[in-house]
Amino acid sequence: MTKLFKISLIAAACGLTVQTVAAPISIEQQGSFAVGGTVKTSEGVYNPEPDVVKDKDSNNFMDVFTASVQAGGQTLHGDHATVFYQIPTDARKNPLVFLHGAGQSMRTWQTTPDGREGFQNIFLRRRFPVYLIDQPRRGQSGRSTVDANVKAVPDDQFWFAQFRIGSYPDFAEGVAFPRDPKSLNQFFRQMTPNVGAFDANIISDSLDKLFDRIGSGILVTHSQGGIVGWLAGMKNEKINAIVAYEPGNFPFPEGEVPPTLKSRFGDVVPMSVPKAEFEKLTKRPIVIYFGDFIPDHLDGTQSGEQWYIRLQLAKQWAETVNKHSGDVTLVELPKAGIKSNTHFPFSDLNNLEVAEHLQEWLKAKGLDQ
Amino acid sequence: MTKLFKISLIAAACGLTVQTVAAPISIEQQGSFAVGGTVKTSEGVYNPEPDVVKDKDSNNFMDVFTASVQAGGQTLHGDHATVFYQIPTDARKNPLVFLHGAGQSMRTWQTTPDGREGFQNIFLRRRFPVYLIDQPRRGQSGRSTVDANVKAVPDDQFWFAQFRIGSYPDFAEGVAFPRDPKSLNQFFRQMTPNVGAFDANIISDSLDKLFDRIGSGILVTHSQGGIVGWLAGMKNEKINAIVAYEPGNFPFPEGEVPPTLKSRFGDVVPMSVPKAEFEKLTKRPIVIYFGDFIPDHLDGTQSGEQWYIRLQLAKQWAETVNKHSGDVTLVELPKAGIKSNTHFPFSDLNNLEVAEHLQEWLKAKGLDQ
Repeated sequence: MTKLFKISLIAAACGLTVQTVAAPISIEQQGSFAVGGTVKTSEGVYNPEPDVVKDKDSNNFMDVFTASVQAGGQTLHGDHATVFYQIPTDARKNPLVFLHGAGQSMRTWQTTPDGREGFQNIFLRRRFPVYLIDQPRRGQSGRSTVDANVKAVPDDQFWFAQFRIGSYPDFAEGVAFPRDPKSLNQFFRQMTPNVGAFDANIISDSLDKLFDRIGSGILVTHSQGGIVGWLAGMKNEKINAIVAYEPGNFPFPEGEVPPTLKSRFGDVVPMSVPKAEFEKLTKRPIVIYFGDFIPDHLDGTQSGEQWYIRLQLAKQWAETVNKHSGDVTLVELPKAGIKSNTHFPFSDLNNLEVAEHLQEWLKAKGLDQ
Repeated sequence: MTKLFKISLIAAACGLTVQTVAAPISIEQQGSFAVGGTVKTSEGVYNPEPDVVKDKDSNNFMDVFTASVQAGGQTLHGDHATVFYQIPTDARKNPLVFLHGAGQSMRTWQTTPDGREGFQNIFLRRRFPVYLIDQPRRGQSGRSTVDANVKAVPDDQFWFAQFRIGSYPDFAEGVAFPRDPKSLNQFFRQMTPNVGAFDANIISDSLDKLFDRIGSGILVTHSQGGIVGWLAGMKNEKINAIVAYEPGNFPFPEGEVPPTLKSRFGDVVPMSVPKAEFEKLTKRPIVIYFGDFIPDHLDGTQSGEQWYIRLQLAKQWAETVNKHSGDVTLVELPKAGIKSNTHFPFSDLNNLEVAEHLQEWLKAKGLDQ
C-alpha cells in the first residue's frame, strides 16, 4: 500500500478530504509543449502590406486580417497534440501518458467533479512522471487543418446516460458519483468539443511522436481514446504497456474479425487490421478496465446496451490477443471487488481504489520501477 | 533579487539552461475546475429511448445521438472558464491569475517556445499561487452556448508581424525571440481558435466568479485579455491589482473619450464606460507593460502602426486614470532598460528580467506579501 493510500484511508476514517492531509508534491520539472501535427500552406505570396488598407478613411483590423490571409502565402501549424507534463522528485522510470476520451480534454485526469484529486495528482504522489494530453483538434489543440462547424446542441442528458451515471435525472443506485448539483455542474463543464473531425490516425501519430520524444512509457487511454491507443501501440515500440479504461473498439487481425455487435442504441463494428500490425499488440502487457452497471444482456437502456456490447467485444479481443501469445488482462471492476463505477472509474468516488488496482498491475508486470 | 533569479544568472554564466539547475517546486495543492458560464436548455422533453432506433436493422450511434438531441429537453453547460491552479509551499498571500490574449490559451504562461520556464513556473518559484485560465470559448473551455464556424485559414505570417517578432521570414534585429525553426514551430502551435464569438462580458463574468471563489488576488492579462481585465476590475473589488501586458484597448469615462486612433492596419476606437464604472479602476494599483520595436510615429508597417497607436492610447488612459486619483504605472520596457521584447515579453528570451520587474512593482505596492 502506498503512503498516500494509507493517508487517504486515515483521512476517510476521520471524515476529512484527502487534500487537507496530503503532503506537498515535489515537482522536479513541469511544462508544456506541442507534438506532432502538420503545416498547411495557402497559395499565393505573403504580402505584409495588404492592399485593402491603402485608400480607406477608416480601417477595420478584421478587414486587414482578411486581406492578409486572402493574399495567401501563409502557413497554419495544426493537428498537433498539446502536452502538460510533471516529473516528481525521485521519479519512477516509466512515465504515465494519459489520453482522454470523447468530448473530454486533459481535465479528465485532473481534479474530480467534486474537487478530489484525480489520476494526475494520485500518480504524481506515487512518483510516476505524468503526461496529460489534449489530442489534436480538442481543447488547447484546437488549431486544426480542417474547417469545423461546432453546434451548440444541448446533449448533457445523453452523455449522463452514455457515461452510466444514471438515467437523467436519476442517479444509478449506489453509483460512485457525487450527487450534489455543484459536482454535476463541474462534470458537465469538463466537456469540450472537437474542432475539426475526430481522426484516430492523426491523434495516434501525435502519440507516436510523443513517445519518440520522451522515450519508453505507459499509455493510459479512456473510451474513444482506446482505439487511438491501439493504433499508437502498433506505431511505436516505446509504448511499454497500454492501460485502457472502457475502450470503445478494438483492432482484430484480418480473418479473425468477429461479427458486428448490435444494439438498439448503436452497433459496434469491430476494427480490422493486417495481422502483422495486430501482432505488435501481442508484444507488451495490456490491461483493460470496465466499471459497474453493465448488464449481462441487451436490457433496452442506452447505457446497458452500449456497454454490454463493448464489454463483449473486449472479451473477444482479449481472447484473440492472448491466443496469439499476447498479454491482455481484462478487469471487470465489480468482479475484482471494486463496485459502483461509472464510465469514469478514475474520477469516481472510489478512484483511489481504482488507482491502487492499476498500480498493483503495473507492479506485477515490472512496470513500476 | 530572488533565489531563482540568482540561480538563473549563474546558469546563464555557465551556459546552462535554467531547468538543469533549478530546485524542485514544492506544490501544496494543485487542480482544475470550471467557473462561471451558463446553462442552455433545449425545448422538448428528454427521451431516454429515442424512437429512431426501434425498427431498424442497423443502428448507428450518431443517429441515436441525433435523435436524442432532437427530442430536446436537454441542457448544455457552456461559456465557463477553465482554471488550472497551483499553490506552492509557504505561499504568498496574493495569487497571480493569468489571462491569455487573442488566439492563445493558458499555454501562453507555461513553457516558452524554446523550452524555458514561463511565468507559471517563474512565479511558483517565487512562492506566488498561480491560476491559469482558458477563457470561455477557448481551449479547454470550448463548450460554447453559441454555434461556431472555425475556418482553418493559414495566417501564421500575419500574427508573426502583429506580435512584433519581425516581418516574416525576417526576425526583427536583435529581437528577444529564439530563431531556430523548432521554437517557431512551438510558438505557432500555441495558438488555438475561438469556439464561438469572443465576448469580453462573458469572459469578465467568469473572472468575477473566479475571484469570488478564490478571494483577493492580482489579475495579469495579455493583449486582447486587457479589455477583459478592465471589465473584470470594474466588476469585482477582490481584484487587488491589474497587470496588463500590451492591452489592446482601454475604458475611458464618458465625456473624456479620446478620438479614434487611426492606422493603415486597423483603427482603435477607445472604449467608453459610465464614469461611476471607470472610477472603480482608480481604486487599485495598475501596471501596464509595453515591449520593444514600437516606433514613435506611423511607420507604414503592420506591427509598427498597430502598436504605435495602442501605446499612444495607453498613455492617454494612464493620464486619465491618474488625473482621477488613480494609480497607473505605464512601463515602456526599453525605457526601463529591458530591450528587444516582442508582444510576448513574459515568454521572450529575457523573461526572467521581465518577471523581476513585475515582482519589484508588486513589492513597491505591498502586493508581494
